[in-house]
Amino acid sequence: MSACSASAAPVAEGVVPFRGDRQAGIVTPAQDRLHFVALDLTTDNRERVRALLQKWTSAAERMTAGAETAPGGAVGGNPDGPPADTGEALGLPAAKLTLTFGVGPGFFDKLGLDPALRPAGLAELPRFTLDQLDPALSGGDLCIQACADDPQVAVHAVRNLVRIGFGTTSVRWSQLGFGRTSSTSTAQATPRNLFGFKDGTRNLKAEDGAELLDQHVWVQPGDGPAWLAGGTYLVARRIRMHVEIWDRTSLAEQEAIVGRTKGEGAPLGAAGEFDTADFAAIGPDGLPRIGEVAHIRLASPEALNGVRILRRGYNFVDGSDGQGHLNAGLFFVAFMRDPHAQFVPMQRALANKDVMMEYIEHTGSAVFACPPGLSDGQYWAQPLLEA
Amino acid sequence: MSACSASAAPVAEGVVPFRGDRQAGIVTPAQDRLHFVALDLTTDNRERVRALLQKWTSAAERMTAGAETAPGGAVGGNPDGPPADTGEALGLPAAKLTLTFGVGPGFFDKLGLDPALRPAGLAELPRFTLDQLDPALSGGDLCIQACADDPQVAVHAVRNLVRIGFGTTSVRWSQLGFGRTSSTSTAQATPRNLFGFKDGTRNLKAEDGAELLDQHVWVQPGDGPAWLAGGTYLVARRIRMHVEIWDRTSLAEQEAIVGRTKGEGAPLGAAGEFDTADFAAIGPDGLPRIGEVAHIRLASPEALNGVRILRRGYNFVDGSDGQGHLNAGLFFVAFMRDPHAQFVPMQRALANKDVMMEYIEHTGSAVFACPPGLSDGQYWAQPLLEA
Repeated sequence: MSACSASAAPVAEGVVPFRGDRQAGIVTPAQDRLHFVALDLTTDNRERVRALLQKWTSAAERMTAGAETAPGGAVGGNPDGPPADTGEALGLPAAKLTLTFGVGPGFFDKLGLDPALRPAGLAELPRFTLDQLDPALSGGDLCIQACADDPQVAVHAVRNLVRIGFGTTSVRWSQLGFGRTSSTSTAQATPRNLFGFKDGTRNLKAEDGAELLDQHVWVQPGDGPAWLAGGTYLVARRIRMHVEIWDRTSLAEQEAIVGRTKGEGAPLGAAGEFDTADFAAIGPDGLPRIGEVAHIRLASPEALNGVRILRRGYNFVDGSDGQGHLNAGLFFVAFMRDPHAQFVPMQRALANKDVMMEYIEHTGSAVFACPPGLSDGQYWAQPLLEA
Repeated sequence: MSACSASAAPVAEGVVPFRGDRQAGIVTPAQDRLHFVALDLTTDNRERVRALLQKWTSAAERMTAGAETAPGGAVGGNPDGPPADTGEALGLPAAKLTLTFGVGPGFFDKLGLDPALRPAGLAELPRFTLDQLDPALSGGDLCIQACADDPQVAVHAVRNLVRIGFGTTSVRWSQLGFGRTSSTSTAQATPRNLFGFKDGTRNLKAEDGAELLDQHVWVQPGDGPAWLAGGTYLVARRIRMHVEIWDRTSLAEQEAIVGRTKGEGAPLGAAGEFDTADFAAIGPDGLPRIGEVAHIRLASPEALNGVRILRRGYNFVDGSDGQGHLNAGLFFVAFMRDPHAQFVPMQRALANKDVMMEYIEHTGSAVFACPPGLSDGQYWAQPLLEA
């Protein structure tokens, strides 16, 4: 791949370039906060959808540049019309806002697009053991992932895009994430999920270089329809975590389930977080030091024929569940070249064998195809609507 | 009142003292993030409740000091028992965590406390015009307000207190807030709510001094039962904001409804945010420059016989509403000396006349009595349980 053209240009502090070979918000170092929205098309009119995608793209470009959040930024021209911007981010910095766009199966169905344009990766995921998916928290014809270091900036962006989409799209579901659960850069410390463990130590990272990222994250020419080459797939899973039950489990049991120590995050039997996990080591009891069904073994490339994904999830708490518990968990977001060759075997292994499944529940699921980045003047999904 | 004893002691950066004449989290400069939980007692056994409040107090003191979040902090002593701490905030700073405690009407009823201990301010609020209260988002026997600059720290605190309460309390409802909507210190810039307007410009602030705060915020000796003197009442209202409808309203109409300009936040007819609102001024059309039913007029001390409150609310987005809209709004939290003499007349005026009511809906409501601060060795609500 050529170097990312936009990233070479000087940009203001806290601004992540919107245009380039790749969409931002994928290998971009994971920001602190997330607002993710899945939308449905409420029209089958291609021209209206095209007009919306043009408007969205220009609004997204403005917002990621911080233009609408600059102090003294315009709140709207004509006082007799609605303000051009909703205003709640006035005075806030760009906060590394990225807006990442994807299309779901319904985008092709509802607009009656040429079947040759529909990528195979959007085929429905199989049902996994113990799945408890809520249709109201699953699927979607389009998605927009907003990440920023300030939640008000991420919420502002989604809310304004939703507003612009009124009459053409409606919100299917949305999810706020308050703390990242993965690093996507070696410059970032590994954060902790709501089970209290460091999460994503072995995640793919921007610094892993083009070869690994091409192999695992970016759709390659020849993988499918040409428009998606250089893009990727986004798999979202809303994972409710039964933290109250987990919290009553012993530390030794928690560490055995995960396969790492809780404090340092080291693979069992090793000392440091980034030490190599020795899956062959036998403990004093004659059993594998890292159990046969430990989470880090089941999800490891070693156990999955080399499968890796780029995780970019967030912790969430959505109030309480009406039964005396917090409605909390992990909103899993991962990017990959082929969901069916990567996410599916990984999740199948976990769903069937991971003891952690006793403490979690997958309540939402969606897959989107994320086009490559935009060059100057292009708008989101342009090749699909001008094909 | 004597000076707050704890605040004189040197404390680590990012640590708000837990003990003192007042509870922290009230006039403390409003932190960026909130996790609020209302709990119900699942027992009528006073001894068990007393034991819980002792455990809670010592956990709250440890957590606000950052003890449980220090790098390398213990995750638990005995590996065969559950970890002492859930761990997700390991490595994070104290982040100005405050934990503010209150009791609701059920605390007195369920424990059969002496009726003389029950403060009059906990009497049920009247139903206001257009109230759409959901019982599942209202009330509670106890509340804990966790505020911090890092949401993971606030969530961690609530989650661990909920965990410690298992068997004695259960979660009734909980609310995450992602952005503050008021300043409680003149050192803070006025933030914006999800209608895009600066909110809380005329809020009571810590710097207003003891006389004003005693008059409006702190329960005074003689106001009611002695245990609450030096404490305050907390009124919580979950206010759903129909942002999609608001966003289609003209800028001029929005500003007329609020009574301020959107950009600067100046009272209509004035230039600067903190300029005095001239409620007598007549515009070129012969009508009052700030309308008779403008929000800032209806809620002003001038219109309410001098009533003022200390607001400390947060923006929220709780996913979507299943009808294509974001489930977003303002979680109103305010502290005051007497809800029935302050919140009730203010909310009655707004509910009956404020045009903004067309764009909002009150979906949750609760009132709690917050005791004064704790001296060394005291635990939350001790005077109530040892009376």
